[in-house]
Amino acid sequence: MTIIVQKFGGTSLADVEKIKNVANAVVREKKLGNDVIVVVSAMGHTTDNLIKLAHEISDHPSDREMDMLMSTGEQISIALLTMAIHELGYNAVSMTGAQVGILTEETHSKARIVDINTNKLLEHVNNGEIVIVAGFQGVTKEGEITTLGRGGSDTSAVAIAAKLQVENPGSVERCDIYSDVEGIYTTDPRVVPTARKLKEISYEEMLELARVGANVLHPRSVETAKQFQVPMRLRSSFKLEDLGTLVIGVEKMEIYKPVTGLACDKSQVRVVICDVPDRPGNAGKLFSLLAKYELSVDMIIQSYARSSNNTNDIAFTIDKDDLSKFVSIKDEITSILNPSTVHIDEDIAKISIVGAGMIDRPGIAASMFETLAKEAINIKMISTSEIKISCLVEKMHAKQATEALCKTFELDGQDVALVHGTLPE
Amino acid sequence: MTIIVQKFGGTSLADVEKIKNVANAVVREKKLGNDVIVVVSAMGHTTDNLIKLAHEISDHPSDREMDMLMSTGEQISIALLTMAIHELGYNAVSMTGAQVGILTEETHSKARIVDINTNKLLEHVNNGEIVIVAGFQGVTKEGEITTLGRGGSDTSAVAIAAKLQVENPGSVERCDIYSDVEGIYTTDPRVVPTARKLKEISYEEMLELARVGANVLHPRSVETAKQFQVPMRLRSSFKLEDLGTLVIGVEKMEIYKPVTGLACDKSQVRVVICDVPDRPGNAGKLFSLLAKYELSVDMIIQSYARSSNNTNDIAFTIDKDDLSKFVSIKDEITSILNPSTVHIDEDIAKISIVGAGMIDRPGIAASMFETLAKEAINIKMISTSEIKISCLVEKMHAKQATEALCKTFELDGQDVALVHGTLPE
Repeated sequence: MTIIVQKFGGTSLADVEKIKNVANAVVREKKLGNDVIVVVSAMGHTTDNLIKLAHEISDHPSDREMDMLMSTGEQISIALLTMAIHELGYNAVSMTGAQVGILTEETHSKARIVDINTNKLLEHVNNGEIVIVAGFQGVTKEGEITTLGRGGSDTSAVAIAAKLQVENPGSVERCDIYSDVEGIYTTDPRVVPTARKLKEISYEEMLELARVGANVLHPRSVETAKQFQVPMRLRSSFKLEDLGTLVIGVEKMEIYKPVTGLACDKSQVRVVICDVPDRPGNAGKLFSLLAKYELSVDMIIQSYARSSNNTNDIAFTIDKDDLSKFVSIKDEITSILNPSTVHIDEDIAKISIVGAGMIDRPGIAASMFETLAKEAINIKMISTSEIKISCLVEKMHAKQATEALCKTFELDGQDVALVHGTLPE
Repeated sequence: MTIIVQKFGGTSLADVEKIKNVANAVVREKKLGNDVIVVVSAMGHTTDNLIKLAHEISDHPSDREMDMLMSTGEQISIALLTMAIHELGYNAVSMTGAQVGILTEETHSKARIVDINTNKLLEHVNNGEIVIVAGFQGVTKEGEITTLGRGGSDTSAVAIAAKLQVENPGSVERCDIYSDVEGIYTTDPRVVPTARKLKEISYEEMLELARVGANVLHPRSVETAKQFQVPMRLRSSFKLEDLGTLVIGVEKMEIYKPVTGLACDKSQVRVVICDVPDRPGNAGKLFSLLAKYELSVDMIIQSYARSSNNTNDIAFTIDKDDLSKFVSIKDEITSILNPSTVHIDEDIAKISIVGAGMIDRPGIAASMFETLAKEAINIKMISTSEIKISCLVEKMHAKQATEALCKTFELDGQDVALVHGTLPE
């Protein structure tokens, strides 16, 4: 008997009817002869409502108490889903993160999982019970309740699957991540209506797509799945017959095209620190300062020193949400680096193409730049990784760039079989 | 430094403003130089909302999952109250029942507390922190979440105070139970507007009043307080300057009047099983059957065998909420006892007078019966304990009986100092 770990997000559990629907999706997998462990998030708007309550009391509630508060959301979900499964005549039992023994670091609000105790979990599973686990939460060895931060429930699900897999290789068939999206598309179908849903994608590609804002799966969970080789399936809880997209190791895929997907991220802001005197250590000082204030920096470019006045421009992008924090430390930056000016540009979009097949196919970057040039779209910044190329363009050009690149890299259109091979299931 | 345990019910925590008010009540006690442990219930209608959600999913949700669900209510309260105390500049920390180590039996939905581990609690207290504990909930030694049933949060508060008192006699000053009532009245002030608030009442009297439906404090918590001699104060969270009513050992009171209070309970139904053949064991069979179906019986009267046909009438009262359950087993009762008929009378009220002073004052019962006779009120059943006399009357006579008895036993009227002696505080 193999174990399927299922994860259902808040949208899938938004109300009583949806919870009953999830119960059906769980029982469906059990009926196929699998052992089933289910990880759930808080119902629909529960999290938002709890945050609102907290903020009516305090502008800066303590992380510990926020974890205490937020972890109730998943606890409500597990109890209700378990009841709904009982109604269908199946044995099920709910467990909080603490009860499972999802041991985390002693950091509140964004703890990392240190270990998972599978004893009680497997005891229930071996007893024929479907186990419903509260995602997003864990417990420190002192018994403090912690939460895992963004993407936490995905991480819980994958970590449980990974731990079971490590302890008993081959025992876990898959980790299915159910949400309101039907899988991973070559690009955003709202922008390019002819975007295709991928049958398969590699962990590496998924990671790059997640980081560039495809917003489907948090990178932490993909990293864990990759590390422990847990196959994941991204699928819709509202279309159970649809197999969604399988995320697996690149070595298990047959790669047909160099570019698997395209993502457009409009949530970044470009900052240019102009005319920074060209002294060693200036860049280091700047990024240390940004790190101190927990400002995540994405693309970074430092221009060559200009011969005329011996200064550099340092450009980088930050998340739009961090902009007000950045503005509040602008003076500190100025006093340290002494630039001529600090320029902030909100009118940008980052277009990224991703594909594990890029690695051994030269010329992909060139054809991306040519495509944009042909469309007369100016590239403001470029950054690359082994399987990703990102270009910063003006926001007004985002749609045009997306469409042109989809055409160049055949990400739209006809139902070409992108991936061959047999799918498990 | 002595410890004050405070308990706040759901009405006191109904919304954000009320939670802030409770934070003030907590800090007020801390400012007086006390160590403070606070036990809280779920916010206002949280419990009802959670029950409603569960019943939308299942008509008979499992007790275990109900406990999992319900315990989130108090967890939300502790986090929010702790935040509110932080806002006032005081150190505070929230703890679930499991985190404190409120060990219970392995029964769901109405577990009894087996033990309380005070280590972590005292660690925080000794650290100068105000500890906010989730009431109503505990944990089994297997780590299962349990709830304590009705009056659970009162029980949690008193049990914590009792355990601390046992471990370190004299360490606990008082257990203050805050609610929306201002204390214990001689009788219901909505019925008798001149009812007086008692400054003191004994555990025993409080127990009798609680059992006859005074609805202020659950008997379990009073029993625990009595057993471990924890003084309790019943007071209003909306009138902090009001000292409410102190519940203490009878030996610490100066008793002035034989009757301390009067309660009128309209939530009972009288059942008469008519003409049961007078054979040994019939009453035993009946009450075993009622016990098997968990029907709590209150007053019981078995008439003398009638000479004519050698049968008995057996009359008893049950809770109105149990009536439908009783009706469903009526046929079973008939088949076992073979009575001529089973008569159900919903039109009754139970009037009880309570007073520790009754013990050595004869004639109280007589003067109760005389008072009712003078008002031409028929007594349908009588039951007595050492410190309580209850009479069943027709519901239409309840108010008249209450008023007349208040006059007889001086429970209304002028602000007579009922109790002498110095109040602690």
